Amino acid sequence: MIQTPYLLFLGDAPDQLAAKVAQGIKDWRPDNAVGQLRMEGCGADVGLTDMTLADGLAAGAKTLVIGVANRGGVISDAWRAVLVEALTMGYDIASGLHNLLRDEPELVEAANANGRTLFDVRVPSVEYPIANGVKRAGKRVLAIGTDCSVGKMYTGLCMDAEMRKRGMKSTFRPTGQTGILITGNGVPLDAVIADFMAGAVEYLTPDNDADHWDHIEGQGSLFHVSYSGVTMALIHGGQPDAIVLAHEPTRTHMRGLPGYQQPSLAALRDMVLPIARVANPACQVVGVSVNTQHMGEDEAKAYLAEVEAEMGLPTTDPFRFGAERLVDALADI
Amino acid sequence: MIQTPYLLFLGDAPDQLAAKVAQGIKDWRPDNAVGQLRMEGCGADVGLTDMTLADGLAAGAKTLVIGVANRGGVISDAWRAVLVEALTMGYDIASGLHNLLRDEPELVEAANANGRTLFDVRVPSVEYPIANGVKRAGKRVLAIGTDCSVGKMYTGLCMDAEMRKRGMKSTFRPTGQTGILITGNGVPLDAVIADFMAGAVEYLTPDNDADHWDHIEGQGSLFHVSYSGVTMALIHGGQPDAIVLAHEPTRTHMRGLPGYQQPSLAALRDMVLPIARVANPACQVVGVSVNTQHMGEDEAKAYLAEVEAEMGLPTTDPFRFGAERLVDALADI
Repeated sequence: MIQTPYLLFLGDAPDQLAAKVAQGIKDWRPDNAVGQLRMEGCGADVGLTDMTLADGLAAGAKTLVIGVANRGGVISDAWRAVLVEALTMGYDIASGLHNLLRDEPELVEAANANGRTLFDVRVPSVEYPIANGVKRAGKRVLAIGTDCSVGKMYTGLCMDAEMRKRGMKSTFRPTGQTGILITGNGVPLDAVIADFMAGAVEYLTPDNDADHWDHIEGQGSLFHVSYSGVTMALIHGGQPDAIVLAHEPTRTHMRGLPGYQQPSLAALRDMVLPIARVANPACQVVGVSVNTQHMGEDEAKAYLAEVEAEMGLPTTDPFRFGAERLVDALADI
Repeated sequence: MIQTPYLLFLGDAPDQLAAKVAQGIKDWRPDNAVGQLRMEGCGADVGLTDMTLADGLAAGAKTLVIGVANRGGVISDAWRAVLVEALTMGYDIASGLHNLLRDEPELVEAANANGRTLFDVRVPSVEYPIANGVKRAGKRVLAIGTDCSVGKMYTGLCMDAEMRKRGMKSTFRPTGQTGILITGNGVPLDAVIADFMAGAVEYLTPDNDADHWDHIEGQGSLFHVSYSGVTMALIHGGQPDAIVLAHEPTRTHMRGLPGYQQPSLAALRDMVLPIARVANPACQVVGVSVNTQHMGEDEAKAYLAEVEAEMGLPTTDPFRFGAERLVDALADI
């Protein structure tokens, strides 16, 4: 468990997109961040107070979170100097970078010398069990995509936020690096050993109150041949009561697979339901979440209405137009 | 690649069942084994010539294969003495044990001192790629089970043997520890990191002659919630042209999951086909392989006839009654 609150390290991010982890924390867990630390040449700004390491400590920060992707996959000398200083001053550091903090001897040495912890959230820190399939108390919802990167995480975060607003019991359960850094815990499912994937999801979503909802972050797609096994493990480990179909309508082919087309939402529904009912015979598809970011507002609304008529399910872009109708559908279960 | 031929180490196996790896090698790749090495108290015999380490070397053996499960999950002092001697004499050692050879300091030291290799086939030795989904040349068949451990490996080995007998181009592609030790290579799929599972299967079954068949060893089951993600990756990484459904009719519940029943063969067919056609639109279910080992001969034959009538597919127990009809069905594709 990564200690909050955070100071968000934006480094020398070339642009706003490079700081998407910091932006996610600011958007979804603003109380977890006291401010942002930007180095010379930083082209990103997530709208938090600019702070030095000393300012952050004074504001109560416990962990410096790397909120930015690094250029070329290497931790530069300029970054390393700041990170070593942070450890020396008493910060833990958390990172979702491909190159691990633990592989940087200077950082390991500084962490050891100062009794601090390096969190590489890209790799599992737990020995997960093999899934036992036993029915757990509480409710679970999972977003299942027609493709990778269609907005499954944002769908879950939106529904979680709407439930909290209504005073419902609700927890977002991250299964990827960005989600883990946003909330401070979770399972980096794509890095788990095959035999333990479903067990890791069971571990992530334990028994809970009967009226509590877990929003399990989706991964991959049943129709994406590179990652479909991860999606399968999420469904069978998560044993969802409800599934929201997630879609991005402007793709010309499956992400990274030029020879593959996205399935229709109807085809996705027809494939996922019998699979989900192996683990939870009561599972229902309750709605559709469309990522309309590449559409104008009128176009988006017309598309949502069209999908809603075709699928007979509440359909919205929860980030753009609100998650109320998806949560209404869940509340009926 | 593990060097053949082998000397099979049966150690102090308490009974025949404990030596199932050695038995598999004897049954399926007898030319790969020059003999068996049994220690005092060994209760197993796979029917090969008993040999000392020196005898094995004289007969040309390159690798000592641990063909037996160890008691209590520890490598005993008695075993260790034999294994160190083997390394000293010039053998490599290959093992599928849970506790790894590489974690035994005396074995590592003896291997290093003598320039020998320790093969722990339970863990991957390759950095597998992420699957790219590109269609590969050649034909592939995959056995898909109603449950785990229903005879998928034996089904593949039987079909491969029948094809070789007919002079067809055919390769068995192991995805588990026993299969890897039988053939000397393969992918230990249950130990691969989630994101690379489908890529590992692509790596295992590369482009081949148009009339060559890969028999990909199945794992898990789409209906087994602990391991279904592994099965999914096999289907999408393997892009099979043909699927054989595998079933063991005497189970009272899914293996290790008392709350779960096996699906019907019709339900399995209906789930697997749309999944398989994502990666290979031409995929067909061509037959049914039933493990009848717990049935009398008359009972088995009656059951096979019943399934064949119900499913409209060639149905046999290929280990007991031959794989001819399954291979006939494949040859028509």
